[in-house]
Amino acid sequence: MADHPYIVTLRAPDAPGIVAELAKAVFQAGGNISDLGQHSEQGEFACRLEVDPTVSLASLREHLSSLSTQHGWSIELFEGTEIPRIVIACSTTLHCLSDLLARIAVGEMGCEVVAIVSDQLDGQSLAEQFRIPFVHLPVGQDRRDQEARIAATLGELNPDLVVLARYMRILPAEITEAWEGKMINIHHSFLPAFAGAGPYKRAHERGVKLIGATAHYVTAGLDEGPIICQDITAVTHRDSTRDLARRGADVERSVLAAALRLHLEHRVMVFGNRTCVFN
Amino acid sequence: MADHPYIVTLRAPDAPGIVAELAKAVFQAGGNISDLGQHSEQGEFACRLEVDPTVSLASLREHLSSLSTQHGWSIELFEGTEIPRIVIACSTTLHCLSDLLARIAVGEMGCEVVAIVSDQLDGQSLAEQFRIPFVHLPVGQDRRDQEARIAATLGELNPDLVVLARYMRILPAEITEAWEGKMINIHHSFLPAFAGAGPYKRAHERGVKLIGATAHYVTAGLDEGPIICQDITAVTHRDSTRDLARRGADVERSVLAAALRLHLEHRVMVFGNRTCVFN
Amino acid sequence: MADHPYIVTLRAPDAPGIVAELAKAVFQAGGNISDLGQHSEQGEFACRLEVDPTVSLASLREHLSSLSTQHGWSIELFEGTEIPRIVIACSTTLHCLSDLLARIAVGEMGCEVVAIVSDQLDGQSLAEQFRIPFVHLPVGQDRRDQEARIAATLGELNPDLVVLARYMRILPAEITEAWEGKMINIHHSFLPAFAGAGPYKRAHERGVKLIGATAHYVTAGLDEGPIICQDITAVTHRDSTRDLARRGADVERSVLAAALRLHLEHRVMVFGNRTCVFN
Amino acid sequence: MADHPYIVTLRAPDAPGIVAELAKAVFQAGGNISDLGQHSEQGEFACRLEVDPTVSLASLREHLSSLSTQHGWSIELFEGTEIPRIVIACSTTLHCLSDLLARIAVGEMGCEVVAIVSDQLDGQSLAEQFRIPFVHLPVGQDRRDQEARIAATLGELNPDLVVLARYMRILPAEITEAWEGKMINIHHSFLPAFAGAGPYKRAHERGVKLIGATAHYVTAGLDEGPIICQDITAVTHRDSTRDLARRGADVERSVLAAALRLHLEHRVMVFGNRTCVFN
Repeated sequence: MADHPYIVTLRAPDAPGIVAELAKAVFQAGGNISDLGQHSEQGEFACRLEVDPTVSLASLREHLSSLSTQHGWSIELFEGTEIPRIVIACSTTLHCLSDLLARIAVGEMGCEVVAIVSDQLDGQSLAEQFRIPFVHLPVGQDRRDQEARIAATLGELNPDLVVLARYMRILPAEITEAWEGKMINIHHSFLPAFAGAGPYKRAHERGVKLIGATAHYVTAGLDEGPIICQDITAVTHRDSTRDLARRGADVERSVLAAALRLHLEHRVMVFGNRTCVFN
Repeated sequence: MADHPYIVTLRAPDAPGIVAELAKAVFQAGGNISDLGQHSEQGEFACRLEVDPTVSLASLREHLSSLSTQHGWSIELFEGTEIPRIVIACSTTLHCLSDLLARIAVGEMGCEVVAIVSDQLDGQSLAEQFRIPFVHLPVGQDRRDQEARIAATLGELNPDLVVLARYMRILPAEITEAWEGKMINIHHSFLPAFAGAGPYKRAHERGVKLIGATAHYVTAGLDEGPIICQDITAVTHRDSTRDLARRGADVERSVLAAALRLHLEHRVMVFGNRTCVFN
Repeated sequence: MADHPYIVTLRAPDAPGIVAELAKAVFQAGGNISDLGQHSEQGEFACRLEVDPTVSLASLREHLSSLSTQHGWSIELFEGTEIPRIVIACSTTLHCLSDLLARIAVGEMGCEVVAIVSDQLDGQSLAEQFRIPFVHLPVGQDRRDQEARIAATLGELNPDLVVLARYMRILPAEITEAWEGKMINIHHSFLPAFAGAGPYKRAHERGVKLIGATAHYVTAGLDEGPIICQDITAVTHRDSTRDLARRGADVERSVLAAALRLHLEHRVMVFGNRTCVFN
Repeated sequence: MADHPYIVTLRAPDAPGIVAELAKAVFQAGGNISDLGQHSEQGEFACRLEVDPTVSLASLREHLSSLSTQHGWSIELFEGTEIPRIVIACSTTLHCLSDLLARIAVGEMGCEVVAIVSDQLDGQSLAEQFRIPFVHLPVGQDRRDQEARIAATLGELNPDLVVLARYMRILPAEITEAWEGKMINIHHSFLPAFAGAGPYKRAHERGVKLIGATAHYVTAGLDEGPIICQDITAVTHRDSTRDLARRGADVERSVLAAALRLHLEHRVMVFGNRTCVFN
């Protein structure tokens, strides 16, 4: 018996009675629901269950499968036996990378980093310390050439998730579309404020009294993908742009780690350009 | 048709299948569940549903009633047609009282204040401004005499909820027991720190860097009842005890208002000395 | 002897030695500095002192005056004997108005409301409850005619500060310029995000996980004036636009009250489009 | 010329005119004060200045030294050329250790870790990854023997600061007194709530809605030393004790890192059992 609950997610066109059917199926499989979240929006329904691991997995799988077949609902069962494989991309600013590695090193995130890819060499030393393969993909004469190598590298590694930990190059639509819903970026502002480059400089000029960070799924539109997690910290007139970057780094690292955990626990579902986060 | 969802709450001994049965009953009544929260703890199960007001109330009432009869579950249906009647108690510190009155005046809380009771006269002027009956119950030679008058006053008014908005006298067990689960107090610290009198003075002496407030149901044990809501604010070495009281006032008022709203929306369920808050 | 410190503010072109001179002058006047904040930016220097009220006011006034004359520095001494007179402007959304009135009613803000002006009638009832003159300035056929009446009304009332508490009309440059640094607005988003109309609707569409409010001095540029205070609150996918407006109301009221208090305590100094807030 | 300001701190019996004298000395040395914080409490005065690095260090040193001699004031000048040497102590819970190492690895804290000491072996692997000497000081038959070895180790290493990053043994008064003001501990609750062992378990039982962490200087009284930094995070009824520990870990690591940075920047001054934090 597992020491963690099994997770069930369901997506379907919205209609009355879905929860009743799903809960009945779990009950008939001999399972006990220990947590349940549901949401409907724009005609779509989503639900996430946690089922006590006392249930027979075979029975649960069978009942859910027949429910899915019967209604055409998209149902997934996560048994929690496979450790998710992630790739982290970075450039020259390394606090998010080092934070994720430090968390993973103490067993906090429940995932494995299969590679660190970067257009720069700065992250190599951290990669070596943590004994993680470092893939250097510098930009040469043709930007598109590097993009093709990134696409190929990700394709070969085939991770469950790609995390852009302050990777500072815009990815082409071929890549963002191929990894839709499987690529998370951290932006160093409370989006939609200061989308694009240089958010701390612009925050300083505007004289805001709080700065923030936003973790979101990557889409073709720059900094426009579905937001998973945001947080802010207070700043004052005494903070220079450099101070904002330093203070903001703390928010960036905790927001990115939180988004990663929410994703890995199957708590995030995308509805158009919005996310539903069951927590 | 109502313009707000109907609320259903359920309490029962924990067992598998309860949600399945409840969701089925709503479905069979023709209802659509728009929100669902569940929790189990210490062998007890609690659930809160919101049902779209498109359902026939008569049918929903009937299906829930037969479910309740069949299983012995405690099920309540709140139609939202009756405006809750509350009594506010205060003493000399009036910011929580004035805040609640200001919120209620702009239609924010969905409740009616049937009386303000106080051992002091300070609140009378605010009561008059808001045209609310003011009941002055001063303490004379015998403390127990005043307590009896409070008990009698509350008994006559028979409100849905009593809010202690910085009422500074300890209530006897006869009253706290009579109003168990129906009396909310605001304490001016992040309990369990600084329980009892003078929390801001003690917070200053201890040199804490944050102060807070706690809204809780009142029980016989002073400041020991189930906590509904807490929040804090940052303070510095420059804040005197008086500054702490001023800064803390902002937290007190927002925490008390939040707790009141959670209670009125039937989002709070008590499990022993802990609360489950569906939000 | 006063029961609060005297406040001294200084503005001057930045140069070494200003604090030394100012502190010397206070010392020679027999005063003790109990708090000191300083800031320089863009070649300008600002300083704010609190001086214990044990000092002779006449002596302090004389020493500061001669320092000002000698160096051409702009020095102000606030004795705290005059109660600031404010005008509040509102439209149909009244939670900020009712919050300010509730705070002022319990003596929290140290100011007097000399009038409530509005283009609508909604605030009249609150004004009457708090016995404050209500000036109704509706918009007729010519928008500019109403603007002229507002300008005239403010001119006659001549308050120390005008607070736009969800006043929903854009004021013309003649008014914003006449009241520069003396008119505070509350915007219902964490600016610069969602500047302009309908911020909660746009926040919902964008799927942000936090909403906020911004208090700023009013300038000719809409929602572009120097920011005094900002705060946010977390929201979820379950919050509708209406829920965001309700949750945001809590942030708006506390941010506006905080900004008002900071201004009245002479803690805010404007440097171009940024503020320096000594607290 | 340095690329950071010089820091000047002053401690003296409270009296008028100290800031004037200090500011004059800096001015006469040709220095420009870019930041100034002052505080007085219980008859003691403290002040912290930042002086632009354009000043001649020799001249600044001389003027401050003669001021100190003249008045008997305790004045320190930090030139920022020496990198502080710290020792980190840990036991079995490693998230604070790994977080500090990750921050230091990306150059964030401006200090060097000269050793990691522990009563357990769990931290050894992280120490090796970051190439930091690991000193294993297990407890044998006699607790006092281990304490003597810790005292000796710290004495030999002679660091500028000792950081207890979830070191789970109580240190004897000989050690805490020897390192007074130079030893920081992280406690996993918002003190004074849940002082002592097992705070998350007790927080769960009490049903609090927020949990926190406190960084404080270590004194002989367990969890009673001067508080440097505190923060909290919200929790719900759904969080088990284990969940609280996980969520709390995030607060612990950021609070400890913040306290470390404040200390290293000479921003913290102790007044009895309270701290003054200039930031």
